[in-house]
Amino acid sequence: MNAVVVRNIHRAEAGVVEALGRLGVATVHEAQGRTGLMQPYMRPVWRGARVGGSAVTALCHPGDNWMIHVAAEMIRPGDILVVACSSENTDGAFGELLATSLKARGAKGVILDMGCRDAAEISEMKFPLWARAISAKGTVKASIGSVNVPVVCAGVQVRPGDVIVADDDGVVVVNRVQAGEIARLGEEREKKEAGSRARLQKGELGLDVYGMRKSLEEKGLKYIDGPLE
Amino acid sequence: MNAVVVRNIHRAEAGVVEALGRLGVATVHEAQGRTGLMQPYMRPVWRGARVGGSAVTALCHPGDNWMIHVAAEMIRPGDILVVACSSENTDGAFGELLATSLKARGAKGVILDMGCRDAAEISEMKFPLWARAISAKGTVKASIGSVNVPVVCAGVQVRPGDVIVADDDGVVVVNRVQAGEIARLGEEREKKEAGSRARLQKGELGLDVYGMRKSLEEKGLKYIDGPLE
Amino acid sequence: MNAVVVRNIHRAEAGVVEALGRLGVATVHEAQGRTGLMQPYMRPVWRGARVGGSAVTALCHPGDNWMIHVAAEMIRPGDILVVACSSENTDGAFGELLATSLKARGAKGVILDMGCRDAAEISEMKFPLWARAISAKGTVKASIGSVNVPVVCAGVQVRPGDVIVADDDGVVVVNRVQAGEIARLGEEREKKEAGSRARLQKGELGLDVYGMRKSLEEKGLKYIDGPLE
Amino acid sequence: MNAVVVRNIHRAEAGVVEALGRLGVATVHEAQGRTGLMQPYMRPVWRGARVGGSAVTALCHPGDNWMIHVAAEMIRPGDILVVACSSENTDGAFGELLATSLKARGAKGVILDMGCRDAAEISEMKFPLWARAISAKGTVKASIGSVNVPVVCAGVQVRPGDVIVADDDGVVVVNRVQAGEIARLGEEREKKEAGSRARLQKGELGLDVYGMRKSLEEKGLKYIDGPLE
Amino acid sequence: MNAVVVRNIHRAEAGVVEALGRLGVATVHEAQGRTGLMQPYMRPVWRGARVGGSAVTALCHPGDNWMIHVAAEMIRPGDILVVACSSENTDGAFGELLATSLKARGAKGVILDMGCRDAAEISEMKFPLWARAISAKGTVKASIGSVNVPVVCAGVQVRPGDVIVADDDGVVVVNRVQAGEIARLGEEREKKEAGSRARLQKGELGLDVYGMRKSLEEKGLKYIDGPLE
Amino acid sequence: MNAVVVRNIHRAEAGVVEALGRLGVATVHEAQGRTGLMQPYMRPVWRGARVGGSAVTALCHPGDNWMIHVAAEMIRPGDILVVACSSENTDGAFGELLATSLKARGAKGVILDMGCRDAAEISEMKFPLWARAISAKGTVKASIGSVNVPVVCAGVQVRPGDVIVADDDGVVVVNRVQAGEIARLGEEREKKEAGSRARLQKGELGLDVYGMRKSLEEKGLKYIDGPLE
Repeated sequence: MNAVVVRNIHRAEAGVVEALGRLGVATVHEAQGRTGLMQPYMRPVWRGARVGGSAVTALCHPGDNWMIHVAAEMIRPGDILVVACSSENTDGAFGELLATSLKARGAKGVILDMGCRDAAEISEMKFPLWARAISAKGTVKASIGSVNVPVVCAGVQVRPGDVIVADDDGVVVVNRVQAGEIARLGEEREKKEAGSRARLQKGELGLDVYGMRKSLEEKGLKYIDGPLE
Repeated sequence: MNAVVVRNIHRAEAGVVEALGRLGVATVHEAQGRTGLMQPYMRPVWRGARVGGSAVTALCHPGDNWMIHVAAEMIRPGDILVVACSSENTDGAFGELLATSLKARGAKGVILDMGCRDAAEISEMKFPLWARAISAKGTVKASIGSVNVPVVCAGVQVRPGDVIVADDDGVVVVNRVQAGEIARLGEEREKKEAGSRARLQKGELGLDVYGMRKSLEEKGLKYIDGPLE
Repeated sequence: MNAVVVRNIHRAEAGVVEALGRLGVATVHEAQGRTGLMQPYMRPVWRGARVGGSAVTALCHPGDNWMIHVAAEMIRPGDILVVACSSENTDGAFGELLATSLKARGAKGVILDMGCRDAAEISEMKFPLWARAISAKGTVKASIGSVNVPVVCAGVQVRPGDVIVADDDGVVVVNRVQAGEIARLGEEREKKEAGSRARLQKGELGLDVYGMRKSLEEKGLKYIDGPLE
Repeated sequence: MNAVVVRNIHRAEAGVVEALGRLGVATVHEAQGRTGLMQPYMRPVWRGARVGGSAVTALCHPGDNWMIHVAAEMIRPGDILVVACSSENTDGAFGELLATSLKARGAKGVILDMGCRDAAEISEMKFPLWARAISAKGTVKASIGSVNVPVVCAGVQVRPGDVIVADDDGVVVVNRVQAGEIARLGEEREKKEAGSRARLQKGELGLDVYGMRKSLEEKGLKYIDGPLE
Repeated sequence: MNAVVVRNIHRAEAGVVEALGRLGVATVHEAQGRTGLMQPYMRPVWRGARVGGSAVTALCHPGDNWMIHVAAEMIRPGDILVVACSSENTDGAFGELLATSLKARGAKGVILDMGCRDAAEISEMKFPLWARAISAKGTVKASIGSVNVPVVCAGVQVRPGDVIVADDDGVVVVNRVQAGEIARLGEEREKKEAGSRARLQKGELGLDVYGMRKSLEEKGLKYIDGPLE
Repeated sequence: MNAVVVRNIHRAEAGVVEALGRLGVATVHEAQGRTGLMQPYMRPVWRGARVGGSAVTALCHPGDNWMIHVAAEMIRPGDILVVACSSENTDGAFGELLATSLKARGAKGVILDMGCRDAAEISEMKFPLWARAISAKGTVKASIGSVNVPVVCAGVQVRPGDVIVADDDGVVVVNRVQAGEIARLGEEREKKEAGSRARLQKGELGLDVYGMRKSLEEKGLKYIDGPLE
């Protein structure tokens, strides 16, 4: 499946994508059984964005950003571009001109397993961008890759149309077919956490809120008075 | 000393802890002979906090944050929780609910040799937090560790009750017994630096302010006019 | 050429240095054929600065910042101090007092292949500083190095008097003799990009703006309708 | 698909697996269009092994090797166990006792995205093992994962039954369904390389053997006599 | 406790040290409850050594090996020199001449949280050496540190006289006072493992040898027949 | 100076190159005042080689090894090929076919700031090769660079014709013009070390052999009897 561009992909329902985006990375990751999280080197270029969108994928080669231009044509409003690279590379494959272009096409953000440049301009534009590095290193347009094929990005497989949720905690990928169910589980979790939060704010301990004392004792945890020495 | 919780620890005098916190990391580190500094990967989750507090320690295992809940009960107002891990791990052991709980118990901050999540929420709460990584990766509650035993955190030994000073420069640990003396030395140093600062601001050179010219010459430093070529 | 201080260096014309500084790192790096960029670990201590200046170089040893004091005397208004180290080291070789001193001497910024401390104070002063790490680790004044000799800093050779451009994207080095020509090429590039930007903002694709469709086809890129499965 | 063990998987034909193993990592990686290579941190614990086998997959959690024991039961002679981990972890999840057990079950090797221990004993046994680290750090048996589900290991997706080829160059994964075709392409490549090798050994240049001079000239490469200066 | 040399230290009984050395790192680490293991970057310079000895400690500064010479005088036959550094540094602080000297004084090996050089010569001498890096970078003799004070080396606290065990798996530290008990527990563990090994060699599964099936079922592990799809 | 091939370069005298190669990396590095050493990530692919030769340089781009083929034509017997890359990259730019070709042209070795493949075959051929990584990742021939221009390789500037010395300790670069003088200084150093070695072998301490006791005392080093506590 090399050097192919797939024009059409299935996307999850807009309402579900929006719901997942609102829940944020930590809640969605927990809701789907602690899976789908990209490695923590994938960081926001500026702090404060939280987005959800459908994945359009691009597979690039080191030092080469040609397929990002090809992928731009496949973007529909609400999509998030996920750029994987065939080997580890931090070159500046994405900058302000591409951000301008993708924004004009309706992209909600970019997840980039390469470097980005024009960090100041992109931050000012408030274009949501997660990347493995900031680097001005220029790239060429010499090697073709693929668009809208399954890729591994920052340690997680992403299929075109999967739901991407990204915020200051990183990036999580949700299987398109399960997206509705995960959104529902995430909302339940959020409600439950609201109850715990209220109790913790009053000074109750997690040991009591979550009922952990018995299992800790069974595991053999011992308390001693101290101080030692 | 595995799987034990020590209830009571000695703490340094509140006035001394406060003085050290005010002096900040760089000054305190110098005052105690350039020792006690955690490795530079230990970074603030948000910039601008400066705190001092007494260490309550927790020893966790990779992917497991159970002992943070146990440690929460041992926190007294003014304490800083220091979380060590038995191997290198960046999983998200600490998030907004734990921050809420610790804040309610009076903790002044957390030093976390693991990952944290809910970075946006914790930054908004202005809860002081230093961590080795930001990661939403969920943790389990399966393996018991210890609370208030000596630990090595980011390359430095921390005993319960040691004074922790943390700011944008990182984290430094002060031996509880020596804390008063270190605070005094730090204040002296601060005064001396104020004098140097005034001279440097006027454009005097460090070479003259610190009297370095003679020792440089003795070491063999040569000046040539240049330019070369 | 060990342990020598060169008093006089050639500098590029002030107007050229200013022009390069205004263009910024990404444009200058492209204008000189994608060369001269420091490795991406060299990051600004605070976001938002953009500077250009003439390089005064210092070669230090690990854990030792003595030559920064020696270099301070060689600074002329408009210079940028470039500090290299004879091996990898993150110790805090530069802090607020040195920033105060260099500012008083007219330095426009510092590029530091070591660690810095007093990050909060230096950020507040808005003194432009790029470094490989933030660390409060104190340094000694025991080993002599050199000032105004050619050094390798973050993977790039810097000769005294070369033009340094630094912003949120990193740091690029321009050969002093070619600086005028690079400034001219950079300004041309900037104009050309303005035209592309206008078209991309309207939603035109890079594929068309840059005329890429034919070469992609020649390379063998195939489009299929999909969706797959 | 959490916490599930799949008993039966499809495997590629034994002859094809053997052929791929003989060809080695570099040739197979090229034969399938330069895809499927694990990241270069995945290294042999001892140098000199070259194996091919069918993947049985296990997904473990950091600091926990329980699922390796579960996976052992699913091994058939000729299989290679591929161990992924839900976050980055170097703990010693695999040692001499597990190597003894897997060898007894007919496993041809192990690919371990965690740490291994008993490196001396395993090297002496000549049990083929690739790992991200050597570490004696003990692991627990507390969290369940999965066996024979698709996993991402060292940056590549592995489905149960895919063909694994590993040698001193690293590890490559071949899609089970395409394995026969890849073996055929690899053998063709090997023959072609034998011809090139004979010419290169006689001192002919790659420029001529591969006919590169014209395309280099078209790209604009210039030759000058030198020496410079 | 800066810049002090302690002449006399307590050592564990020779028979206990020898017993621990024979057991090796993985067994000793388990016997003391999975504690005391240095980080996995601490690697043998040549493969195949296994040693046990009493720690003589030295605290050096980056780029400076002076205190290794001072520590040499404190070595007694059977000791292992443990060199810590006040910040991360890979300079070549230890080479063939120091190895020759330490060997002549009866040292059984060196654990070096800095770099070493003369790797070929030291390997040929079969002098046991674990280091964080191999680097020819020369060091100076300019800053004093300490000998026979507690240090943190590769993430573990080492007190003078603690027992050091090192082999191809890394380095583990045993508290001097507990050394006899740990040796006894290690020997028990070794016997128990011999029994497991015999059963595993016959092809019995760890699931049965260690009786894991019931707890896996209780945790909720499900088996399905497959193959999937 | 982009995309240019310089045909002729100056080389140091053969006798001098040979002498430097025999001295080895650590001695040569010291002889030239502790300069010129490449960073320690540059490691031999197999242990035991020691070579000296004249540098032919190639500047490649990430994922592209085209210029190695171009450089092969410029190799004269006794040369060492030094390959730099325009950004950090570990792709397998050099394998057994290129080793065969370079060997046939008389090259004495290769220093590769990229990855290599065919590690087993190259080790068996005993072709001297230092690289930053082993990786089978294939490279393309799409972007032109330069041959025989100054490059920065692993942190050190290399000019064509400089002398390269490489062994198990790493790689050091000697300025061509100073090579004779450095060889002479290295031989002197070697003789002096022979004298020290003889004394150290008899058990004399470096403290006495190098006369360090007085300067340690002047620095303030204190001896105490101990043991502490």
